[in-house]
Amino acid sequence: MADPRFYAVAGPFSLEELATIAKAKVSGRTDPTHRFVDVAPLDDAGPDHVSFLDNRLYKDEFAASQAGACLVSPALADRAPAGMALLVTPEPYRAFARVAQAFYPSPPAASSIAPRATVDASARLGEGVRVEAGAVIGPKVEIGRGSIIGPNAVIGAGVTIGEECWIGSGTTLAYCVIGARAIIHPGVRIGHDGFGFALGAPSHLKVPQVGRVVIEDDVEIGANTTIDRGSMADTRIGAGTKIDNLVQIAHNVQIGRGCIIVAQVGISGSTRIGDFVMMGGQSGVAGHLDIGRGARVGAQAGIMRDVPAGTTVIGSPAVPVKEFWRQVATLTNISRRSGS
Amino acid sequence: MADPRFYAVAGPFSLEELATIAKAKVSGRTDPTHRFVDVAPLDDAGPDHVSFLDNRLYKDEFAASQAGACLVSPALADRAPAGMALLVTPEPYRAFARVAQAFYPSPPAASSIAPRATVDASARLGEGVRVEAGAVIGPKVEIGRGSIIGPNAVIGAGVTIGEECWIGSGTTLAYCVIGARAIIHPGVRIGHDGFGFALGAPSHLKVPQVGRVVIEDDVEIGANTTIDRGSMADTRIGAGTKIDNLVQIAHNVQIGRGCIIVAQVGISGSTRIGDFVMMGGQSGVAGHLDIGRGARVGAQAGIMRDVPAGTTVIGSPAVPVKEFWRQVATLTNISRRSGS
Amino acid sequence: MADPRFYAVAGPFSLEELATIAKAKVSGRTDPTHRFVDVAPLDDAGPDHVSFLDNRLYKDEFAASQAGACLVSPALADRAPAGMALLVTPEPYRAFARVAQAFYPSPPAASSIAPRATVDASARLGEGVRVEAGAVIGPKVEIGRGSIIGPNAVIGAGVTIGEECWIGSGTTLAYCVIGARAIIHPGVRIGHDGFGFALGAPSHLKVPQVGRVVIEDDVEIGANTTIDRGSMADTRIGAGTKIDNLVQIAHNVQIGRGCIIVAQVGISGSTRIGDFVMMGGQSGVAGHLDIGRGARVGAQAGIMRDVPAGTTVIGSPAVPVKEFWRQVATLTNISRRSGS
Repeated sequence: MADPRFYAVAGPFSLEELATIAKAKVSGRTDPTHRFVDVAPLDDAGPDHVSFLDNRLYKDEFAASQAGACLVSPALADRAPAGMALLVTPEPYRAFARVAQAFYPSPPAASSIAPRATVDASARLGEGVRVEAGAVIGPKVEIGRGSIIGPNAVIGAGVTIGEECWIGSGTTLAYCVIGARAIIHPGVRIGHDGFGFALGAPSHLKVPQVGRVVIEDDVEIGANTTIDRGSMADTRIGAGTKIDNLVQIAHNVQIGRGCIIVAQVGISGSTRIGDFVMMGGQSGVAGHLDIGRGARVGAQAGIMRDVPAGTTVIGSPAVPVKEFWRQVATLTNISRRSGS
Repeated sequence: MADPRFYAVAGPFSLEELATIAKAKVSGRTDPTHRFVDVAPLDDAGPDHVSFLDNRLYKDEFAASQAGACLVSPALADRAPAGMALLVTPEPYRAFARVAQAFYPSPPAASSIAPRATVDASARLGEGVRVEAGAVIGPKVEIGRGSIIGPNAVIGAGVTIGEECWIGSGTTLAYCVIGARAIIHPGVRIGHDGFGFALGAPSHLKVPQVGRVVIEDDVEIGANTTIDRGSMADTRIGAGTKIDNLVQIAHNVQIGRGCIIVAQVGISGSTRIGDFVMMGGQSGVAGHLDIGRGARVGAQAGIMRDVPAGTTVIGSPAVPVKEFWRQVATLTNISRRSGS
Repeated sequence: MADPRFYAVAGPFSLEELATIAKAKVSGRTDPTHRFVDVAPLDDAGPDHVSFLDNRLYKDEFAASQAGACLVSPALADRAPAGMALLVTPEPYRAFARVAQAFYPSPPAASSIAPRATVDASARLGEGVRVEAGAVIGPKVEIGRGSIIGPNAVIGAGVTIGEECWIGSGTTLAYCVIGARAIIHPGVRIGHDGFGFALGAPSHLKVPQVGRVVIEDDVEIGANTTIDRGSMADTRIGAGTKIDNLVQIAHNVQIGRGCIIVAQVGISGSTRIGDFVMMGGQSGVAGHLDIGRGARVGAQAGIMRDVPAGTTVIGSPAVPVKEFWRQVATLTNISRRSGS
């Protein structure tokens, strides 16, 4: 399916191999000699493709699919069309992620320093590090084994990058410590000054920003996102957290582990976000607040006070989700009645 | 008017020439020997300048203007001051665009590869292509005749760019196919991974993103905008669509032809936007929705369900515009009465 | 406190020296031989550190602090723990900014042109200018004494930059005039085309943008912010204004002096913002409006009409802040009562 200009597909794999990769159980039609060559969506897949059903909304596409094999939950397996091999698992989309990773593994990067890269003599590059054209590596930078620094990326003095990281093209890293396996997409800015001013007449005074940004292991950060360094302490992004494009994270923010921060979110200074929080697109949080572990913040929400752990809030100012929809319904009803 | 440090003005043009360029009819005072040297706003223009009146709000400025000539609709032509030459057209602003393009044509770029550019040996560059300093052109890239690649832009392996495109400085293109006459402003990121994760414990799994971005002909994309590539299929931007700065377009989004997407809009994954849709600044759309042809979305709107073709919606959650203003009026009235 | 990988601390300073720097009065315990080595927050500071109390909320941390000296207002000075030296001032945070600047002065940059920079022969660089690796300086650019152009920044033809500016890595400047002491963070885009189209069939027409961007003295602009150039006149940012990350400023916008524009704000074309206006994060303003001097705009506000000087507005559409909270209270009460 994938355009061969851009992608090389691995495989093929037998159903047994796929079951092992997916951590799923084989069911339905099985032909041990058959080989699967690619992944595909339900409505595009053919007899040599593996697909998945993760959402009950697509059960009709599932029933009509020509896919040779499909990842599916036990509850929906009996909707399968005749002749489809099934890979049954309680988590079909996570299983699909593993299968797709097998078909499309990250290509191994040949270690090299491009002729037109600038690497300071005091920088320390681990084994297998690749530095692409136009990248600038400053004094005393340390880059772990197997990491890739994209074209025209700029790594400021003293920055530490862990093993097997991918730093996208045109990205700027400064005053930061990056853990292992980070994926930093193009145009990300990490570690510049936070918005720190002592306001007042005759002019606002700049407050020197002397902290850092600490990015723990397995973090992914989307294109053109900005993360300010701490004013005195550190700005911190917890392990396994995934941040989308065009997000703003201000100085001294603490984000826990495993969070999902969707595009264009803004998090104001010194706010603390607990583990496994999900923030919807374009939502914003005021400064110095606590968002408790596992909280869910709706898209475009505007958070002006602490959010307790495990709760779901939405609206601007944000309220619990049930209250939000009750308010929407109330206002709709009253304004229709008033007919103004 | 324009600062000669930055702009070279073409011309001068006679009124007849301007009428041809503008597709307008001459009316009022006419002196065939007079030459016009530049465009200018109504309140700044002098006898050698061409101006335009497009908005009834500015009719007083029109009546008082010193402009030698003015583009104007038939309905407002009789408000012209004595001695002003008129170029009458039902679409004065579109006519002004043509006149301004005549005074300020795109400067022809001399074909050249800057010494400090990096162009892979397998890339194919059309006639007249210009590659500026620090640009990086990857393997098997194809660039059409007359296109310009700005300083420090990065064009990833396999990318195809059509004829007469302008790719701004510091822009990153990957996994994409770009049509003719695209204008891609500085810092745009096209074709990086979408936000694709199979969420869950013990850690979110990354789903390989193996689609592309397809940009059709005559598209313009504003500075620092981000467009994710498709997860399995393509993200697509239709011909003639204009996208402003800092917009986020997620994976698998389909945008039709001739759309206007204003700054800081966010469009979530797999949403389909019909032809000639207009989205106001900072508005957002949830994923997997349909926005019908010709719909208009107000600034800061938050769209949570499909929008029928031709309708105008605003608010968060978005409602038809009449209902929005009725709700605003209702809430204003009740809260003033309650005096709480 | 600050990580020595990244920061060199100046000093030490005696209490008398600090009082002079801070423009504060010494009070409490004083030991003329004691030397202070760094700044620190109240809860981290030890006997050799200077801290500050600016917010009554932190008076308990103040009372328990081990800081050797503290900047504090007269009203809160009597809460100090025994043995703490006091630097008393009516503006403790502004005084702290001065002290922190003394401990962390901007490091003097050695004048140099990096080997891998591209500087056009017609560019004029003042004394002590530093151009870092990969930067591209176009024809007829003028850069004032002591300014620093970061790695991979691109300065377009004819741009003028004042003295002692800092232009971050990967930033793009075009069609603009920048005053003295500007701080332009990484990834900023200044001076590209505004979103100027004459809409309509058969296709939207591009209107040439032939103005400039004028940035007055002492302006700071956050990472990945975008500022479009004027269509015919100039886009202008007044002296001393501070702009955060990911802000969008459209063509012809006029921003006054000393404004504070927080992250992800969007300002539409031709709007005028008076002096000392504060705009909260993610707020937006429609085009062609006037925001009066000293107005305050709440986070996520959506401004659809003029805002009088000195007023505070919030909400979308924005209303005076008292009215906003009354509306919120009214809707909350009614919807709870209706129990729908």
